[in-house]
Amino acid sequence: MKRLMILSMICLALSGIGVYAQQAIGGGQEIVSPEINENGTVSFRLQAPQADEVKLTGDWLPAEGFVPGSVVMEKNEKGTWTHTTEALEPELYGYAFLVDGLRVNDPNNAFLSRDIATNTNIFIIGGKQADLYKVNEVPHGSVTRRWYDSQGNQMKRRITIYTPPGYENSRKKYPVLYLLHGAGGDEEAWIELGRATQILDNLIAQGKAKPMIVVMPNGNVVQDAAPGEGTQGFIKPAFMVPKTMDGTFEETFTDIINFVENSYRVKASKSSRAVAGLSMGGYHSMHISRYYPNTFDYVGLFSAAILPNQGTTAKVYQDIDNALKKQMENGYKLYWIGIGKADFLYKGNQDYRAKLDAMGMPYTYRVSEGGHIWKNWRVYLSEFVPLLFN
Amino acid sequence: MKRLMILSMICLALSGIGVYAQQAIGGGQEIVSPEINENGTVSFRLQAPQADEVKLTGDWLPAEGFVPGSVVMEKNEKGTWTHTTEALEPELYGYAFLVDGLRVNDPNNAFLSRDIATNTNIFIIGGKQADLYKVNEVPHGSVTRRWYDSQGNQMKRRITIYTPPGYENSRKKYPVLYLLHGAGGDEEAWIELGRATQILDNLIAQGKAKPMIVVMPNGNVVQDAAPGEGTQGFIKPAFMVPKTMDGTFEETFTDIINFVENSYRVKASKSSRAVAGLSMGGYHSMHISRYYPNTFDYVGLFSAAILPNQGTTAKVYQDIDNALKKQMENGYKLYWIGIGKADFLYKGNQDYRAKLDAMGMPYTYRVSEGGHIWKNWRVYLSEFVPLLFN
Repeated sequence: MKRLMILSMICLALSGIGVYAQQAIGGGQEIVSPEINENGTVSFRLQAPQADEVKLTGDWLPAEGFVPGSVVMEKNEKGTWTHTTEALEPELYGYAFLVDGLRVNDPNNAFLSRDIATNTNIFIIGGKQADLYKVNEVPHGSVTRRWYDSQGNQMKRRITIYTPPGYENSRKKYPVLYLLHGAGGDEEAWIELGRATQILDNLIAQGKAKPMIVVMPNGNVVQDAAPGEGTQGFIKPAFMVPKTMDGTFEETFTDIINFVENSYRVKASKSSRAVAGLSMGGYHSMHISRYYPNTFDYVGLFSAAILPNQGTTAKVYQDIDNALKKQMENGYKLYWIGIGKADFLYKGNQDYRAKLDAMGMPYTYRVSEGGHIWKNWRVYLSEFVPLLFN
Repeated sequence: MKRLMILSMICLALSGIGVYAQQAIGGGQEIVSPEINENGTVSFRLQAPQADEVKLTGDWLPAEGFVPGSVVMEKNEKGTWTHTTEALEPELYGYAFLVDGLRVNDPNNAFLSRDIATNTNIFIIGGKQADLYKVNEVPHGSVTRRWYDSQGNQMKRRITIYTPPGYENSRKKYPVLYLLHGAGGDEEAWIELGRATQILDNLIAQGKAKPMIVVMPNGNVVQDAAPGEGTQGFIKPAFMVPKTMDGTFEETFTDIINFVENSYRVKASKSSRAVAGLSMGGYHSMHISRYYPNTFDYVGLFSAAILPNQGTTAKVYQDIDNALKKQMENGYKLYWIGIGKADFLYKGNQDYRAKLDAMGMPYTYRVSEGGHIWKNWRVYLSEFVPLLFN
């Protein structure tokens, strides 16, 4: 439909009556949605005259158990369904419509964020921490998708690299943060869901973070790239990918470090290397940082899955206690653990803290509200990055 | 919903019963859609038990006037709507569902392509030209989103740069193709809709194209970046943006050339510069190539809007005929014009050819089936690129 509309719009535009053109964009719905109102409320609208019931579901609405929160929208005589929220706190929010039970994206909002296999509409209420998630008028770093040679995995693999503002025009060497995604994620996750580019740009501009390179690899070693970006084609993204958390990613992590240190102007020293990740990426960070025990001065575990399955025989997971002890003895500057009180991994993290306490292994602990959600991981990244490379 | 599902899935996975995890991805629909069958047919499925009618619309279905083609899907007793196509020719296709009249993306297909303000599900039927659109096991170039200083527009502007495989590890200098989008597009269009990365990677790997840098700027001078990627935030992408086709983009194009030639290892000579674009980008290419008449040896007009509105007073559009004559006298290696027979700009292109013929200005002409569509522009790019820098 759009293609034909565009044709007619171009005709109109070129013949000087382009005033009609914009009205037809977006599937023909002349509707603004979402509309962020001046008082901080948000209005959602959907044109669906044939629907019997339309609900709005959004991550600001309280869930009931495993059922996400939703509200029924109101229909007017034109078949437009509307709902206006209470004033919302600053945050990046996701939402969808439920049209007669079918989850539907907002045809009037072009902005979607893919989490595993699901695309969700997003919007930002500015202020406080959420201003870090916006593109502001500050110097911008560059984001490159490129491919490196993983000899350990015997494939070329795609990787996302953030270089800070000014990198290309200087001869300076920079420290490196290796930033790892969770299960179901890939080398796009921290950029798309984590707003890593914006958080880094903004914190660097505010003088709160050192200019640094951020390296975001794909932690699923059976993939050469994110679904849709690799040779497997448009495969459906899966939460559990074979060979994750079996030690292979940690074993072959040196391929990534070698690539980065041979390809970028980096400070190739322990004091200029950080590794952090969320959930499975926290697990990877915990194991990588002790498996290569004198390599990283900064470690961040964000809502981390900590310990491997019982019975794993991978070399990486043998003798964990002694490796941790070695890591402690070698010394580091920061071992940062962040977890939400409602996170299903909360207890696992408390058990791990007890273990570290018993060993006398120092760490910084950050407990937050909420659970296993990107809202927390954006905050953790925003708090972790200013502590690096000082 | 997904967030909570993920919680439960992680619980399941970590407790060793991860076998259930994948089933829940994608809004809970345990459905494969689209499924590309071995005989080249494609099956689409949607779980929508409460819907009265579900249609499938796709760009392989013949349109009737301005109404895109669609077929009614069949519902089974479980509320799953299904349709299987005839065998489809090799191509990158787009489709959507119409659920009781509402255009809905496929919740089981994570892959969407944004064209102006509309997201459309995509899939590829391989073979022939469509194999160029796939990520194949070939050396891959890098794609960088970065920002340059446009003094002419008095703003930092975002730009997308493809560097060919091996660029980072060589000291060679490379030729540059400036590749411009159409009205409603931005610096993401050729990457996302045009499959430029894959086309370049594949043609270079086959030895059919010279390794080159491809520069994809944003042609809307009032934007610092694509919607959602700039300081204007999540603005609704519009087809007609103020100040497009008013000469400003052409006037300030030197900012882009200077940035590229100062930032990359390029051959900064006429014989190593090409400029091409689609629709409005063809218009820009036509005017840029004659306004800077001894700058480009290669020019590509893909379904180009050719001539400015009557009455425009911008300096760029004054004395077009003499500028063309000068361009011809200075000489060039390729002036390539591609247009579809069904394109609403077909007549304009024939008029322009007649003008060039009358002047004795040589060009290569490629006429194709079809209209003003990305299917043609991917083909034109695939045919144009091998002709460059020989």
